[in-house]
Amino acid sequence: MIIQFNSAISAPEKEQIAQAVAKLGYKTTEVTTQGNHYLVGIGKQEFDLRTLGHMPGIKDIHRVSDDYKLVSRKWKVGRSQMDLGDGVTIGEGKLAIMAGPCSIESEQQVALTLQHLKDNDVRIMRGGVFKPRSSPYAFRGMGVDGLKLWYKQAKEAGIKIVTEVMQVSQIAEMYDYVDVFQVGARNTQNFNLLDELGKVDKAVMIKRGISGTIEELLYSAEYVFSAGNEKLILCERGIRTYEKASRNTMDINAIPILKEKTHLPVVADPSHGIGIREFVEPVALAAVMAGADGIIYETHQQPEKAASDGQQTLDFAESALLIQKLKKAYEFLHAL
Amino acid sequence: MIIQFNSAISAPEKEQIAQAVAKLGYKTTEVTTQGNHYLVGIGKQEFDLRTLGHMPGIKDIHRVSDDYKLVSRKWKVGRSQMDLGDGVTIGEGKLAIMAGPCSIESEQQVALTLQHLKDNDVRIMRGGVFKPRSSPYAFRGMGVDGLKLWYKQAKEAGIKIVTEVMQVSQIAEMYDYVDVFQVGARNTQNFNLLDELGKVDKAVMIKRGISGTIEELLYSAEYVFSAGNEKLILCERGIRTYEKASRNTMDINAIPILKEKTHLPVVADPSHGIGIREFVEPVALAAVMAGADGIIYETHQQPEKAASDGQQTLDFAESALLIQKLKKAYEFLHAL
Amino acid sequence: MIIQFNSAISAPEKEQIAQAVAKLGYKTTEVTTQGNHYLVGIGKQEFDLRTLGHMPGIKDIHRVSDDYKLVSRKWKVGRSQMDLGDGVTIGEGKLAIMAGPCSIESEQQVALTLQHLKDNDVRIMRGGVFKPRSSPYAFRGMGVDGLKLWYKQAKEAGIKIVTEVMQVSQIAEMYDYVDVFQVGARNTQNFNLLDELGKVDKAVMIKRGISGTIEELLYSAEYVFSAGNEKLILCERGIRTYEKASRNTMDINAIPILKEKTHLPVVADPSHGIGIREFVEPVALAAVMAGADGIIYETHQQPEKAASDGQQTLDFAESALLIQKLKKAYEFLHAL
Amino acid sequence: MIIQFNSAISAPEKEQIAQAVAKLGYKTTEVTTQGNHYLVGIGKQEFDLRTLGHMPGIKDIHRVSDDYKLVSRKWKVGRSQMDLGDGVTIGEGKLAIMAGPCSIESEQQVALTLQHLKDNDVRIMRGGVFKPRSSPYAFRGMGVDGLKLWYKQAKEAGIKIVTEVMQVSQIAEMYDYVDVFQVGARNTQNFNLLDELGKVDKAVMIKRGISGTIEELLYSAEYVFSAGNEKLILCERGIRTYEKASRNTMDINAIPILKEKTHLPVVADPSHGIGIREFVEPVALAAVMAGADGIIYETHQQPEKAASDGQQTLDFAESALLIQKLKKAYEFLHAL
Repeated sequence: MIIQFNSAISAPEKEQIAQAVAKLGYKTTEVTTQGNHYLVGIGKQEFDLRTLGHMPGIKDIHRVSDDYKLVSRKWKVGRSQMDLGDGVTIGEGKLAIMAGPCSIESEQQVALTLQHLKDNDVRIMRGGVFKPRSSPYAFRGMGVDGLKLWYKQAKEAGIKIVTEVMQVSQIAEMYDYVDVFQVGARNTQNFNLLDELGKVDKAVMIKRGISGTIEELLYSAEYVFSAGNEKLILCERGIRTYEKASRNTMDINAIPILKEKTHLPVVADPSHGIGIREFVEPVALAAVMAGADGIIYETHQQPEKAASDGQQTLDFAESALLIQKLKKAYEFLHAL
Repeated sequence: MIIQFNSAISAPEKEQIAQAVAKLGYKTTEVTTQGNHYLVGIGKQEFDLRTLGHMPGIKDIHRVSDDYKLVSRKWKVGRSQMDLGDGVTIGEGKLAIMAGPCSIESEQQVALTLQHLKDNDVRIMRGGVFKPRSSPYAFRGMGVDGLKLWYKQAKEAGIKIVTEVMQVSQIAEMYDYVDVFQVGARNTQNFNLLDELGKVDKAVMIKRGISGTIEELLYSAEYVFSAGNEKLILCERGIRTYEKASRNTMDINAIPILKEKTHLPVVADPSHGIGIREFVEPVALAAVMAGADGIIYETHQQPEKAASDGQQTLDFAESALLIQKLKKAYEFLHAL
Repeated sequence: MIIQFNSAISAPEKEQIAQAVAKLGYKTTEVTTQGNHYLVGIGKQEFDLRTLGHMPGIKDIHRVSDDYKLVSRKWKVGRSQMDLGDGVTIGEGKLAIMAGPCSIESEQQVALTLQHLKDNDVRIMRGGVFKPRSSPYAFRGMGVDGLKLWYKQAKEAGIKIVTEVMQVSQIAEMYDYVDVFQVGARNTQNFNLLDELGKVDKAVMIKRGISGTIEELLYSAEYVFSAGNEKLILCERGIRTYEKASRNTMDINAIPILKEKTHLPVVADPSHGIGIREFVEPVALAAVMAGADGIIYETHQQPEKAASDGQQTLDFAESALLIQKLKKAYEFLHAL
Repeated sequence: MIIQFNSAISAPEKEQIAQAVAKLGYKTTEVTTQGNHYLVGIGKQEFDLRTLGHMPGIKDIHRVSDDYKLVSRKWKVGRSQMDLGDGVTIGEGKLAIMAGPCSIESEQQVALTLQHLKDNDVRIMRGGVFKPRSSPYAFRGMGVDGLKLWYKQAKEAGIKIVTEVMQVSQIAEMYDYVDVFQVGARNTQNFNLLDELGKVDKAVMIKRGISGTIEELLYSAEYVFSAGNEKLILCERGIRTYEKASRNTMDINAIPILKEKTHLPVVADPSHGIGIREFVEPVALAAVMAGADGIIYETHQQPEKAASDGQQTLDFAESALLIQKLKKAYEFLHAL
């Protein structure tokens, strides 16, 4: 069950509620997020909502049959929207487009990309400064220095930053320069990282694991939410299957299924989802039509010279075209 | 290599060509389809196209580096369109919508379905009379009798029939009543069935195997084509993965990849692709946006009473809505 | 439920039993196999076994909660053994070793292989005369002529033949020359083929589908059994996964799981299971240790010159060594 | 390439070697492990080993065509053995058996388990104090306190500890109480954790990722090795596939393939590999026969009361029997 407390709940009221829930044999976790205050109860006993619902201090109470609770639409039917400030949002009502290179490489690259995004009215830039690489000998990113030079320019341009955090110790050093912390596909079940991101007042975008289930993705979001951060976005980015004609198998089914199960925004990454530059567009359009709240993809001024992932990266001309098509497709769908 | 013969090629001309190709160390297969006449050469030696191209009797000659040949766009860049007669086509220029029940159950069901399709200007009806079922104790379909009663009504209604053929011996008994023979996902590599369907002058729609690769699907089409039948349609219907939140994982990537690799029409089956009634629409729309030439899905006057697959079957109201949306989406995409 | 009839059951007795079962709301299938006579009932209603058990004509009656029935160990706890004649058996008490080339290629090859098997006291030879190949342009086997020349020599050598049947029409032409019909991984769910093999009095070995589940394999066996043939062997041969370091992923788990679920013999094919010549031995030994009743693998007098599958084929020296090790491992396990 | 330096190499010698390698266009990483000193060069240019091999300061030099270097058998053909002290080793020459509960639960449980291991001459105990759990509401382990109480008793009993570390900050607090740090399947590509474990002088056992490839596992080991720690063990624990009859699909193929590719010890975890208590034994025996250097499995004094993973946990009687069989199987194989 989820109990949402009144903001002005008193300590004795809280205590009484806790006792009533304990009597049902439920284990509880108290959750304080950016603006809300919840008690999550885990248990199996049937009970009458009304026996609790009238208690002072309770704003709202719901049974949630899913094993994840706070991220479930069985609790919150309406859709959550993340507000990144300056009029930039992710979720409901507007398609969020996030574009940029796989890796941040240089000041000049950042400048060119930001200009490209401004020219096309895109407000969020993606890029990596810590790169998870299978081989220890591969390029691992520019690190926090890269992030700082990026941030300086992005702030001036009024563009928000989404970038991957790979470990707990990076959270603090990245904090001032990041608008959305991205949890990569290899860290979807890095539970310590999720716990720590739950203590932060910044949006977190969690990518589905390389072969993660939809349910596992929801549980990972529950980790962050139950640790205190409800600014969450989920991202479908393709799964690992036997088919090798594409880098991953974009699980288009996951989009409507996630949108049925959770109130959190769901975005799609067609660049990793198919991994082939010339097919990023059809997959991105398909994701919008399946209900995605946003698209995150890779673009670079010279894809063939990109430090990583060049084979799935659009050049700026392709990117500009894609942006126009994505916006039209989103409008079309919502007028359908 | 593929050599297309002139229709008026003489026996001596053919012989000379065969000798020239043999000299290159190529093994050859002569292929005579509904309207064309080819020589397919399999070999590795490099050669100058011009040394063969001038020979009398040759209409066209191409090198094809893919291992499949006749279905490759490296030979035929333009797109093939299947003409089912009476103005009904599959491929290029118009979205082919194929709808109907999983199983043909009764005259009345057929009549209701045909009326629904006519009302919505859909010209192709799907349905099964031979049902492949995991368990020998499950309903296996009405057989040829079901097909005959279906055909009688469909012909009157001006609606074409697509239905699954499960074995060689059924081809002859079904022939007169079928417009498109469907090869099901469990038979994609039933090579004898493919060979025999190659000898028939009816369209053949091959579904991707349950865990078949894109390449295997192309090879299966090559079987039919090289045996003499070029009226082919390919169908993406989801693949088997570890994810169990949906019946299959719809491989949306396969649509643009197939359309790049082959000139054959590519259709999508969202009913099997996701297997959940309320999500058939977003997946169908996504498939159109990814470039599908057609959509095949399940509808029934009372899904909850369907003999099979009810959980993924639309009722007629949902179906009518889907049809309108699919048509608009196709138009939208082609105006984008 | 499964009712085993007395061999001397009368028509009226059978009728009375059928009526009693029908009263429970069970659908029934009467099954007559090589030596037995069953009534299989499919239904959900609870009933007291004793109300049926006393009826004349019933030899034995069992509830079977599995969805497959006749192949389940919930009906027959003991293990079935296939008798191929001349003292050659598959199942319980002795490890069945089946070896030979991927494809039958020539009289001489057959002679050499038979000699190799005789030298090592192996009584069953494998080989393909109809080869399922992804590409229509690949070698498809010697056909029935190859089978005849093989049979002539094998009979003299006292060695049994296991070979793949690909379609219904081949059953009759192969019948006289085959000891075990093999159903290949692409035909595990070719239900018509299974039905027809159910009418034959020869052993049938069913390979697990390329990405078939364990349950589907059991259902496929149920097809054959319920159509009248209880001489069945199941074969684990690796499944298709994302891992590409081996040809397939040998599912070693399937061996103990199948042996728990079915009374039929379970054999393993390490050649296809790993697909790499130098690792066939460890995988074969592992399969024996996991409980396999037999091992089927590929050997050829000159693997590097084999018409197909050379990369996973042992030469005769390796094969001789493997045979000795397999026999010792089987003895070791059964003394453990 | 890998250059092993002489232990007495001088700074000028090192500089000269570095310059010679740089001239070839190779990027280099200097690696100092517990007892050795290497220079790893990554590049593509062909060169004559002799032009470098004669240089003072070089003990050994190898070309390594694999993309992972230090863990490859193309550099070190012989097999590495991990020495945990007090005569306890993992790798070559003796089967390492590691057993214990999924989670450390209490002093008494630890005492009972240690006694069971001593009685059966097992020298390594497994157990979890930090438990990665999909749900944030599940039991997450006793933490470092649990480790300390375990360590106290284990030290007295002369038994070594292998336990999972989930994040960088835990390394220091666990260090004094751990003999082998285990990297779990969800952290196989937690590259920061791997890097930090590379700076530690304790053995590290890396489990294969939930759907990790064999190559990715080798790369993960390369991370640790190249950061300075060559005390490494790899563990096959089953992969995620479509088959749901078992918890995971034990990839028995991975064992001979890994042993071919790397000099590191390879152990197998049948408990997670199949996830079903009654089948742990056959899978464990199969893994030994496939060449595993060790077996790690779960046992508990009362599996049905275990805090986690009870369904795949042996009781002590089953465990004692398994230990005897494993030892005999290992001996049998090595005498074969």
